[in-house]
Amino acid sequence: MTLKLFKRARIYTPLLGSGPACGPDQAKLSVLEDGCFLVEGGRFLAVGRRDEVERRLSDRTVKEFDLGGAAVVPGFVDPHTHACFAARRESEFSMRLAGRPYLDILKAGGGILSSVRAVRSASDDDLYEFSRALLASTLSYGTTTIEVKSGYGLDTESELRMLRVIDRLGRTTPQTVVPTFMGAHAVPEEHKNDPEAYVRLLLDEMLPAVKEQGIARFCDIFCEEGVFSVAESRRILNRARELGFRLKVHADEVNDLGGAALAGEMRCVSAEHLLAASDAGIDAMAAARVTAVLLPATAYSLRKPFARARTMIEKGAPVALATDLNPGSCFCESMPFVFSLAVMGMGMTPEEALTGATLNAAWAIGLEREVGSIEPSKLADFLVLDGEGPAAFAYASGARPITSVWKEGERVA
Amino acid sequence: MTLKLFKRARIYTPLLGSGPACGPDQAKLSVLEDGCFLVEGGRFLAVGRRDEVERRLSDRTVKEFDLGGAAVVPGFVDPHTHACFAARRESEFSMRLAGRPYLDILKAGGGILSSVRAVRSASDDDLYEFSRALLASTLSYGTTTIEVKSGYGLDTESELRMLRVIDRLGRTTPQTVVPTFMGAHAVPEEHKNDPEAYVRLLLDEMLPAVKEQGIARFCDIFCEEGVFSVAESRRILNRARELGFRLKVHADEVNDLGGAALAGEMRCVSAEHLLAASDAGIDAMAAARVTAVLLPATAYSLRKPFARARTMIEKGAPVALATDLNPGSCFCESMPFVFSLAVMGMGMTPEEALTGATLNAAWAIGLEREVGSIEPSKLADFLVLDGEGPAAFAYASGARPITSVWKEGERVA
Repeated sequence: MTLKLFKRARIYTPLLGSGPACGPDQAKLSVLEDGCFLVEGGRFLAVGRRDEVERRLSDRTVKEFDLGGAAVVPGFVDPHTHACFAARRESEFSMRLAGRPYLDILKAGGGILSSVRAVRSASDDDLYEFSRALLASTLSYGTTTIEVKSGYGLDTESELRMLRVIDRLGRTTPQTVVPTFMGAHAVPEEHKNDPEAYVRLLLDEMLPAVKEQGIARFCDIFCEEGVFSVAESRRILNRARELGFRLKVHADEVNDLGGAALAGEMRCVSAEHLLAASDAGIDAMAAARVTAVLLPATAYSLRKPFARARTMIEKGAPVALATDLNPGSCFCESMPFVFSLAVMGMGMTPEEALTGATLNAAWAIGLEREVGSIEPSKLADFLVLDGEGPAAFAYASGARPITSVWKEGERVA
Repeated sequence: MTLKLFKRARIYTPLLGSGPACGPDQAKLSVLEDGCFLVEGGRFLAVGRRDEVERRLSDRTVKEFDLGGAAVVPGFVDPHTHACFAARRESEFSMRLAGRPYLDILKAGGGILSSVRAVRSASDDDLYEFSRALLASTLSYGTTTIEVKSGYGLDTESELRMLRVIDRLGRTTPQTVVPTFMGAHAVPEEHKNDPEAYVRLLLDEMLPAVKEQGIARFCDIFCEEGVFSVAESRRILNRARELGFRLKVHADEVNDLGGAALAGEMRCVSAEHLLAASDAGIDAMAAARVTAVLLPATAYSLRKPFARARTMIEKGAPVALATDLNPGSCFCESMPFVFSLAVMGMGMTPEEALTGATLNAAWAIGLEREVGSIEPSKLADFLVLDGEGPAAFAYASGARPITSVWKEGERVA
């Protein structure tokens, strides 16, 4: 197997610890001037100063890549997307901009249930092709690992079908794809007069069927007024845990329902959104080391105040960053834009944001040993920057300061 | 000469009126479903419904382009940049993010005067090559016409040299480049103890020399506390007008000095920035039809409140949008990002923002008869969108929803 030697790189990376980085550790990066790394079989074999790395070469054939002093960071890990859907909702977005009330939008066929109708009526291939184009776009923005949730099916067969499509995306695109079951994304039209029946369907039929299917590793739920209450969320999450799923919660996005506290109580891997999370909720997350997955492009797209990233970091909750790519509230394919908003809008430092968009994001999807940092044995996923360091993602506002994207040692964009 | 026929386009464009679009007119677009346009010699020959346009063909040879129903808008016109410089200031940006006081940054070699040192010490070719790469990047974001200011030379020879480089950019890159003289961008180090001597240099030597050189069409000035006072600005602008320059003002960026009112009084073509413009200043601009060139990416990069675009539109001042691309306060190459901020941050509608980023921007640099709309006899500069209409620039947040960029009828990105 040919070795690849990448030399003359300025390497910025967080380093794997015993848990997601929190508090002052979130800003700690390893910075290696004139760094070098060896790639073998798609994984980093060695990372370090040139002389240290060259010692590993002995007499083997090596293909050399001279990065000319460019800055290199780990490939972005996007730990929260709904990037499996069948149609945009741009006209609904325009109605929202124009101040049309949400009920009008629903009457005009908009809202999440329009995405459900589109997914249910799309063929497998159409759903796959539409989503594959979305993933290709995220890859061009540097996302080498991506979580994709189901949740536009909302019946057993449609949810299983979405997960099969997400699985197929993972096998056919360059990216590492992590499928998450999110049948509890909304109550479907056919159950709107009896939401309890849908909760029972989730508990008794969908969760066991998804478990048996064996594709999804995580179960996520939208805990929010008018969607699933804290009590319903607790029942669903408990059942999911019994079945062996790892747990995530869309928490306190619009109202402080206590979702963050629930995530702490249930020791979820992550709680997401958190625009309205209370101090007590954040404390509960910090105590249980629940990663806060923040989605600043969603706040931007909804014209809402950002989540309180600084408070979370100060209280010791690990912070990760994600796009939330979805057709309704946030059609954002760009982790560089999320990075920029994290710094300019939420007051994170570029170092904190880099950890949030790479290693902490990897923790949030259980892949901390595979991706998220430039360290031996991990997948050789990295970005060569058009800029001096991670601050380039904020300095070059609204742009894509990436010269090339590499996945498992191959250039993919 | 071969005719090019572009068919099956959904064409969104403002239409040329007797002045820049203001008030409710800023939102008025011509929308042509299943539109068609003919291009000859780099200019639109006809625009309309298919049958109307095909009547113009008779027996001539035509090369056809089927746009498949895609949305098409005019190429972006960026009417305010400082895109001629020799070095980034990313490390200074990081210091600013970290809260280092401006005086510290100056001591560490930062600030505008560091850009002046870099330009003065760069060779003509280095300055040209660095700037050419910037322009190529803006082109990929859809900017087909761009204004570029001097103002990092700040002595007669260096300012003339910058204008020569900007002129060379205009002759060697696909974009239409409009050079603006901005010797009054700052007081250079060698005159810091006697700014009046620099004002006299501008009046007596630089302005006449720039006039004689014959490259710059506009004269711009930074009217701000610690830079040039309203009285100094008036003297310089009066002298520039005598010499035949059209006038622009960087006005009320940080403090309400009365720059907007000055722009109205002097009947400047445009006043720019305007973060702190007063109601009286906006009224003066509206009365004199001075175009307000707003730079929301600068506010974003400086973490300041946006300019009051809605007030300006309501009071009847025409609004244009620009990147302000420069190495210090705003390294933004992306008009799509500026468009997104105009809508999400300043509350403009997508229609108003499109007019602001095309035809009103063309008015702001005196090219309203050449670019900024899709109309017969204008340069055939247009963008094919990855989206349903202009709202795509806000819907696809932080992205570049452009499938292809066309300049004078040729695909350039």
